[in-house]
Amino acid sequence: MWPDLRLCDLLGIEHPIIQAPMAGTTTPALVAAVSNAGGLGSHGCATLPVDVLEDHVAQIAQATNRPVNLNFFCHAPPVHGPGDHARLLDALAPQYAAAGVAPPEAMPVPGFEPFGAAALEVLLRHPPKVASFHFGLPDADAVAALKAAGVTILSSATTVAEAVWLEARGADAIIAQGWEAGGHRGVFLDLANDPQVGLFALVPQVVRAVSVPVIAAGGIADGAGIAAAFALGAAGVQIGTAFITAPEAAPKPLHAAASALGRDDSTRISRAVSGRPARAHRTDWLDGMAGVTPAAFPLMYHYVGPLIGADAETHQFSLYGQAAALAPEGRAADRLAALVADAQAAFGRLR
Amino acid sequence: MWPDLRLCDLLGIEHPIIQAPMAGTTTPALVAAVSNAGGLGSHGCATLPVDVLEDHVAQIAQATNRPVNLNFFCHAPPVHGPGDHARLLDALAPQYAAAGVAPPEAMPVPGFEPFGAAALEVLLRHPPKVASFHFGLPDADAVAALKAAGVTILSSATTVAEAVWLEARGADAIIAQGWEAGGHRGVFLDLANDPQVGLFALVPQVVRAVSVPVIAAGGIADGAGIAAAFALGAAGVQIGTAFITAPEAAPKPLHAAASALGRDDSTRISRAVSGRPARAHRTDWLDGMAGVTPAAFPLMYHYVGPLIGADAETHQFSLYGQAAALAPEGRAADRLAALVADAQAAFGRLR
Repeated sequence: MWPDLRLCDLLGIEHPIIQAPMAGTTTPALVAAVSNAGGLGSHGCATLPVDVLEDHVAQIAQATNRPVNLNFFCHAPPVHGPGDHARLLDALAPQYAAAGVAPPEAMPVPGFEPFGAAALEVLLRHPPKVASFHFGLPDADAVAALKAAGVTILSSATTVAEAVWLEARGADAIIAQGWEAGGHRGVFLDLANDPQVGLFALVPQVVRAVSVPVIAAGGIADGAGIAAAFALGAAGVQIGTAFITAPEAAPKPLHAAASALGRDDSTRISRAVSGRPARAHRTDWLDGMAGVTPAAFPLMYHYVGPLIGADAETHQFSLYGQAAALAPEGRAADRLAALVADAQAAFGRLR
Repeated sequence: MWPDLRLCDLLGIEHPIIQAPMAGTTTPALVAAVSNAGGLGSHGCATLPVDVLEDHVAQIAQATNRPVNLNFFCHAPPVHGPGDHARLLDALAPQYAAAGVAPPEAMPVPGFEPFGAAALEVLLRHPPKVASFHFGLPDADAVAALKAAGVTILSSATTVAEAVWLEARGADAIIAQGWEAGGHRGVFLDLANDPQVGLFALVPQVVRAVSVPVIAAGGIADGAGIAAAFALGAAGVQIGTAFITAPEAAPKPLHAAASALGRDDSTRISRAVSGRPARAHRTDWLDGMAGVTPAAFPLMYHYVGPLIGADAETHQFSLYGQAAALAPEGRAADRLAALVADAQAAFGRLR
């Protein structure tokens, strides 16, 4: 059924399709639904307080006994530049006024921490089959502890150099994340000089550079894309946008609207939302933010947060990828089944 | 041998592989070698004076009786902004001094014209099997005249919207050019807001939007990429970078050096070279030019021209794509044969 079983064997899954972790969008119900359907459900845990994390882990365990993936961020703790607070309040003052919301008064504190001791302790008590990381990896001790607990480690690379770096530090498979991907780019080695590598060029070069399985991510939302990823040498795919409007996902009117509007040309990479580059629905607001130097990730959320609730109809903050228009519909399990069937059909067309 | 024969049938070729036209790099010998090997050789004619064009057409006809493609640019004639000349001389003064070359004294005249009456007349007298265009299409009368002469018309789209526009105006097949592609981006509908669509997301969405065959271009330099393009629904591929160092191509030390240096992350899109966005080898010079608003295409060549000859060793102006590292070696026919064989092997791995 699949021309390459390395990822299925490594992760203990039936179909080499990982539902991408999307912090704020994934739910225990979505994760369990995908895993129960034979894919790998992934929960975006980066923004969860540790008590919520523990609760969600329990919910997932109740809903599935299949492998699941828990995802965390490994960003450097942010430093607020001198003057950044006043500068950003000034830059966004017209927007706060237009939206009728009060600007944030206090200096920001990070809304969430990088992966650290508290989350590690939860994972070691309840080891998931898979843990994935964005923006690099945790420190070597944490990686070793997770691996000793039987956890398979994944992380995202946006370049060959990042893939080699991750493999050398213990990643069991590499997620090759192309320029097309929605949400946060995993770029971490040289954030100031993002080489913007498209998935088509990235996957085969990562495949040549590492010996672990490669998972293609970004711009894949149908079976043809899955077949193409295997043609490029990937052993599986990670798909996010195709699941954002599943009924099991956290309800987000922005996503529903953006999904209807989603086109090949309807997104842009921007640092305006969080402080790191992320692919988002393009709006006048996003274009206008091009001239504003953002706060360090994730402090920028502090400044845009008041606008999110106030101005949902403009879809200012919907994060999705360049292939949104290709996504299947229905419940998560139906979407996974459609992706599997379409991929088989695509393989068949190549024979 | 190929899972989709629409492009082969349309163009009268054995293998659905188009060697990309690359103005200044392609030669009659390269074009003929590729066509004689069963692909479609393409000559980048945009910068050729009409007498040279006529001579090259004759040379190609001497060297092959297989289908060939002649390529032209359909850019708007440039307008030099008031003050641009003084501004650019000022911005580049340190570079002229460092390179030991005299700055251009006169206001520029376009080094070459958009496709027009003179080139059309040559094509109607010696109709090639295929003519392809970049930056849109010639006017409707020219398209009609070419089609009446039996010429098959191709043009590049970087978005679904551009593909639909081209099909409506008579394109017989659409070249879907991804963000990964080396050289000039074909973007023409909204040059100021390039949506930067990666090939992986672009091809299937163009395939759904048009009824003519779709040719995938950008980031393809090996057989796995060719197989992936077919998986995405393409009926063929256009490949440039894989041929730039063939011995039949115009010898360019920049290309040879860049080919050796070429990595997934070694290029950037820049308007510094010509005035339009093009993917080039990344150098300190290219990074430094990010703050300089270029002259309108192609007037910018007038300002960077003196630096090209003087400073070849820095590879400042080598245009190539994100998959350069995957390219085969040898003579053009050997490269085409390797691409064909590798593609068959890639199809085989999917069975």
